[in-house]
Amino acid sequence: MDSFWLNSAFYQASRVLGNTGSNPAVGCIIVNNNEVVGVGATSKNGRPHAEENAIKMAGNKVKGSTIYITLEPCNLANNNFSCTKKIINSGIKRVVIGAFDPNPLTYKKGYNELIKKGIEVVLKKTSFENFLINYSQLCKYFLARPMIGLKMAMSLDGNITNNDIKNQWITSKFSRLHVHQIRSIFDAVMVGTNTMLLDNPSLNIRINGHRHSNYRIVFDKDLKINIKDNLFKTIKKNPLIIFTNKIINKYKYNKLLSLGAIIYEIGLDMNNNLSLDSFIKNIKKSKVKSILLEGGSKIASSFLNKNLIDIIYFYRSSKFTGKGSLNVLDKIKNIDDFELYNTVKLNNEQLEVWINKKIKKLYR
Amino acid sequence: MDSFWLNSAFYQASRVLGNTGSNPAVGCIIVNNNEVVGVGATSKNGRPHAEENAIKMAGNKVKGSTIYITLEPCNLANNNFSCTKKIINSGIKRVVIGAFDPNPLTYKKGYNELIKKGIEVVLKKTSFENFLINYSQLCKYFLARPMIGLKMAMSLDGNITNNDIKNQWITSKFSRLHVHQIRSIFDAVMVGTNTMLLDNPSLNIRINGHRHSNYRIVFDKDLKINIKDNLFKTIKKNPLIIFTNKIINKYKYNKLLSLGAIIYEIGLDMNNNLSLDSFIKNIKKSKVKSILLEGGSKIASSFLNKNLIDIIYFYRSSKFTGKGSLNVLDKIKNIDDFELYNTVKLNNEQLEVWINKKIKKLYR
Repeated sequence: MDSFWLNSAFYQASRVLGNTGSNPAVGCIIVNNNEVVGVGATSKNGRPHAEENAIKMAGNKVKGSTIYITLEPCNLANNNFSCTKKIINSGIKRVVIGAFDPNPLTYKKGYNELIKKGIEVVLKKTSFENFLINYSQLCKYFLARPMIGLKMAMSLDGNITNNDIKNQWITSKFSRLHVHQIRSIFDAVMVGTNTMLLDNPSLNIRINGHRHSNYRIVFDKDLKINIKDNLFKTIKKNPLIIFTNKIINKYKYNKLLSLGAIIYEIGLDMNNNLSLDSFIKNIKKSKVKSILLEGGSKIASSFLNKNLIDIIYFYRSSKFTGKGSLNVLDKIKNIDDFELYNTVKLNNEQLEVWINKKIKKLYR
Repeated sequence: MDSFWLNSAFYQASRVLGNTGSNPAVGCIIVNNNEVVGVGATSKNGRPHAEENAIKMAGNKVKGSTIYITLEPCNLANNNFSCTKKIINSGIKRVVIGAFDPNPLTYKKGYNELIKKGIEVVLKKTSFENFLINYSQLCKYFLARPMIGLKMAMSLDGNITNNDIKNQWITSKFSRLHVHQIRSIFDAVMVGTNTMLLDNPSLNIRINGHRHSNYRIVFDKDLKINIKDNLFKTIKKNPLIIFTNKIINKYKYNKLLSLGAIIYEIGLDMNNNLSLDSFIKNIKKSKVKSILLEGGSKIASSFLNKNLIDIIYFYRSSKFTGKGSLNVLDKIKNIDDFELYNTVKLNNEQLEVWINKKIKKLYR
């Protein structure tokens, strides 16, 4: 039964992905005598933690119970309000966790503290699917950057433009709605300059049951963004982060700040594009633990060439577009880093999920 | 049980696809008292027919039996050697067929003749998969042309060239072997001029258990073919059909004929390419009922633009090739004619089979 309950805890975690601020998305279930007495997930923006929510729900029934947690409970040094302490004080007898927390400040500390207090602790092997739920936390500490997903829609022959102007969309309305479901599990949605200027996107989540305050990130080397763009319409709800090169137009800069935008001034790389190294260095300072990069071909290729993509979501239509259309990728190294992980049929179209092979290596 | 035995008969037919000359690939099973007493398929190059082979195998046990045939038995007017007559004379009591033969010379004639002679005849609905086994015969009479499959190998981002010259292949050796399995179910393998000149292909079937004498067809507008090309190495076993424009070099023409090549001189279309209408008109005269067209992008696009492709086999690799690679298709109309029919995982690559939607309409 341990696997069953731990899977249920992961289900709770998956529901709050993209919604937990700088804290990892954690789920937990408290079971007493085969009865679920508490259920919890990390709260919006991070606090209270999953364990606190579940323990509160369980009330008196927490005594003598088993708690299933997707990630090792926090136990920062000398923190009397840590989840580990709360578990100890609650009278819980047994703790089953899905993974150690890779955060060095708490790694194995919660685990060891519980054992020291005479509580039985089990580290349970998870499915790869559940492992992925913890991946952004692993990414943060193992790779020192957010987890980055790449989403692209392409024609049957691998293009992202359509020569037929009567029908500008490559994929169907159904697939385009489905994208919002993927957006919703990331903290931030990001595009490059060209997409920002051409499509005037909102980059928020517009699907019932999944709406939340996601971050929007844009690369805007020459600060061409227009304050009338859709990106500003929901800025109070959805923080906007702009990466730009030397700020020349101070007036515009101040105006953007006053509207609520967060602006990072970063350097250029050898190709005169915004430096991805500087981008990573700066984005790490934010609360963003996971980013969904949504094309175009230039920015996607630059991220792929630096092996910065962890997971790819390819929405593939059943239309051909042929020569003269824009290939889904720009110049690229010979990349064979990905493995097909999952395929989802969307009417006559298809979502393919490709996983970076290096992630498979982290999974034990 | 009828469905079970008819499926078995279709399995027999599928084994001889691409190997029956101008005759359709037919399979049959004779069952007497739940015992299989005869099994047959169309012989190499067409004769004897499946029914004759199975009746011969059944011997005396044919009397009172049921015969399952994938296609209505032949009954050309006044033919005392037709399969229909052979069934009547054999003492078979019951006939189950998978389809009427669309050939107007025999359409419903076998069916009606059997009924007239007091034999029970059942036309059974087939699965779509089995329907496809009869499709080249339908194509011949409904569309007045061979069935045409398109096979292309492409990178994850839809290209057929690889910028990395160290690794010219888009797909793995495993996938490239699998292609021979697909080739083997077609009467002919075909390429355009560029592929012929660049790749020097043999276009035969080199996989154990599937070798047979397939036709090879090339488009060679200016008769650039070289008599030292691989295409001539197996010409005695594998007929070679060349389509060309005005024959200027009579010496070369005669030389090619003397080597065994079959040459059709055909006109050009508006774009100065070999006319596909003339191609169809001429290929109809041959024994070729089905063709597997193997790229390149130009010839594939021209066939797609004229809606001449019935089924597409996409071998998709897990590599990216990016900008500067050659898109799998050339200029193309906005084509949305195909439906994903099947996906076959080939290690980390994938074969996708797409079916022309018009075929679905023919299936009842």
